[in-house]
Amino acid sequence: MTVLAVDIGGTKFAAAAVEDDGTIMARAEVPLKGRTRPEEALLEVVGRVTGEVPAARLEGAGIGSAGPLDPVAGTVSPVNIPAWRDFPVVEALGRLLPGRPVRLAGDGQCMALGEWWRGLPEREPSGAVLGMVVSTGVGGGLVLAGEPYLGPTGNAGHIGHITADPDGEPCPCGAAGCVETLASGPSMVRWARANGWTGEDARALALDAGAGVAVAGLAFRRAADALATAILTASALLDLDRVVIGGGVAAAGPVLMDPLRQAVARNAGLGFLRRLRVTATGLGRDAGLLGAAALVLPR
Amino acid sequence: MTVLAVDIGGTKFAAAAVEDDGTIMARAEVPLKGRTRPEEALLEVVGRVTGEVPAARLEGAGIGSAGPLDPVAGTVSPVNIPAWRDFPVVEALGRLLPGRPVRLAGDGQCMALGEWWRGLPEREPSGAVLGMVVSTGVGGGLVLAGEPYLGPTGNAGHIGHITADPDGEPCPCGAAGCVETLASGPSMVRWARANGWTGEDARALALDAGAGVAVAGLAFRRAADALATAILTASALLDLDRVVIGGGVAAAGPVLMDPLRQAVARNAGLGFLRRLRVTATGLGRDAGLLGAAALVLPR
Repeated sequence: MTVLAVDIGGTKFAAAAVEDDGTIMARAEVPLKGRTRPEEALLEVVGRVTGEVPAARLEGAGIGSAGPLDPVAGTVSPVNIPAWRDFPVVEALGRLLPGRPVRLAGDGQCMALGEWWRGLPEREPSGAVLGMVVSTGVGGGLVLAGEPYLGPTGNAGHIGHITADPDGEPCPCGAAGCVETLASGPSMVRWARANGWTGEDARALALDAGAGVAVAGLAFRRAADALATAILTASALLDLDRVVIGGGVAAAGPVLMDPLRQAVARNAGLGFLRRLRVTATGLGRDAGLLGAAALVLPR
Repeated sequence: MTVLAVDIGGTKFAAAAVEDDGTIMARAEVPLKGRTRPEEALLEVVGRVTGEVPAARLEGAGIGSAGPLDPVAGTVSPVNIPAWRDFPVVEALGRLLPGRPVRLAGDGQCMALGEWWRGLPEREPSGAVLGMVVSTGVGGGLVLAGEPYLGPTGNAGHIGHITADPDGEPCPCGAAGCVETLASGPSMVRWARANGWTGEDARALALDAGAGVAVAGLAFRRAADALATAILTASALLDLDRVVIGGGVAAAGPVLMDPLRQAVARNAGLGFLRRLRVTATGLGRDAGLLGAAALVLPR
């Protein structure tokens, strides 16, 4: 069985044909830069995949998208794609695959689902897994009792918008002190620059942290503390077995993961929290595509 | 079909025979004060129920217990019952009902399950419900996708031990600034007394708050803020439909519920959080017994 997986990001679209054992048969990627009609980019990226694996062979489509989105209505309004507001992406792909299921979830949810399906070394049938994407924002998704948990309106997993600091700075979501205001790439860069760092972006900040520049290291430890609070909060509520971290900021590696694991270990109170394993993604950028495929593949 | 429900509290044991429509056929309660052998109290409270509904008619038993507990091993170690450490309560009741299922969950989990099963005005098949017990501690439980969610080790729902204030006071659990350090009855009383209040307990504090004593009202607003943070955190993660609040402190009524609803409305950022309904328990003290019964009743 083969399905179409589509990943709608803020700067590019990706698509793949995925087998039911997780094998990626064909893939394509199209940058959005300079495009005024993103739906043309969507048709192009899907067309490249169906050029290799005919649409007639695809038994459904799973879509992971940057938010906000409305999985019930099947529409997306990605913050970084102003031309799409309530764009009916499920309907658009449904026209290409008539009569076959098309499902939509958030990019963080798809990443979590992909890591759970293909990234973990062993499958835990009753596992409780949180996947986190630490990048331009902080997103996430949940697998509970061995099933993707998307929530009644499809919005579960918004770990970037839980409170890490009630007295913290305002968040674009309308609340204050959200994890995202402390641990997203842009918020780390903003904080470092306000404290004397002169670099440009999160990648440079990670390099400086690795090279021992104090303020850069502090920016990562501050983000790690916020992420640890979020992880322990989710674990106290959900009795998690495992947290998998991906995304551009997480790609920094030990400068994030070391202080993060230390903060989780230091602040874990209740006994059952201490069995939690926090690991970096095993799938990298494929996690989102595999998770999107998993939305429509039998498990 | 009739099952036995048992509620193991820190100061009393309760038991009931419960029908599969939620009708309570017989009930008993035994205080623990002055007892050195709590298992005798357990046999006594169950014996009073089986005196009215014979044990042969009971098709299983559900137990809700104060924590900590180990639902996998079937043992309980309630903080306020020092004579019980790893007491094998599932085995003890299994001897009374040989060959029939005996299940154990936390008291907060049972309260949530009872409210979901019998307390809500309408059943929401795919509902996501958080039940909270605000009392000597702050506990809770979850119903997700229309099923009780207890977690891989049975410890889901520990909402009293999520962080409300990272710079807050130490919590007996080992972490700092847990919701329980701000919103449990004893923590509210401690804070009020440190700020000039001279009353004795949470009940007196609620009366004073209702009578307009400023420091008492502030103690409730402070607790309400912490509970609102916890509720919005759980909702961002789990896309909750509803939160039901019970327990001794919640029985104070509007002095807690009014500032709590206001804080939830004020701090709800993301759009999907705004549909959340926060209500006081509809079942009162029966919620725990009904939820314990629901652990073994077909749903």
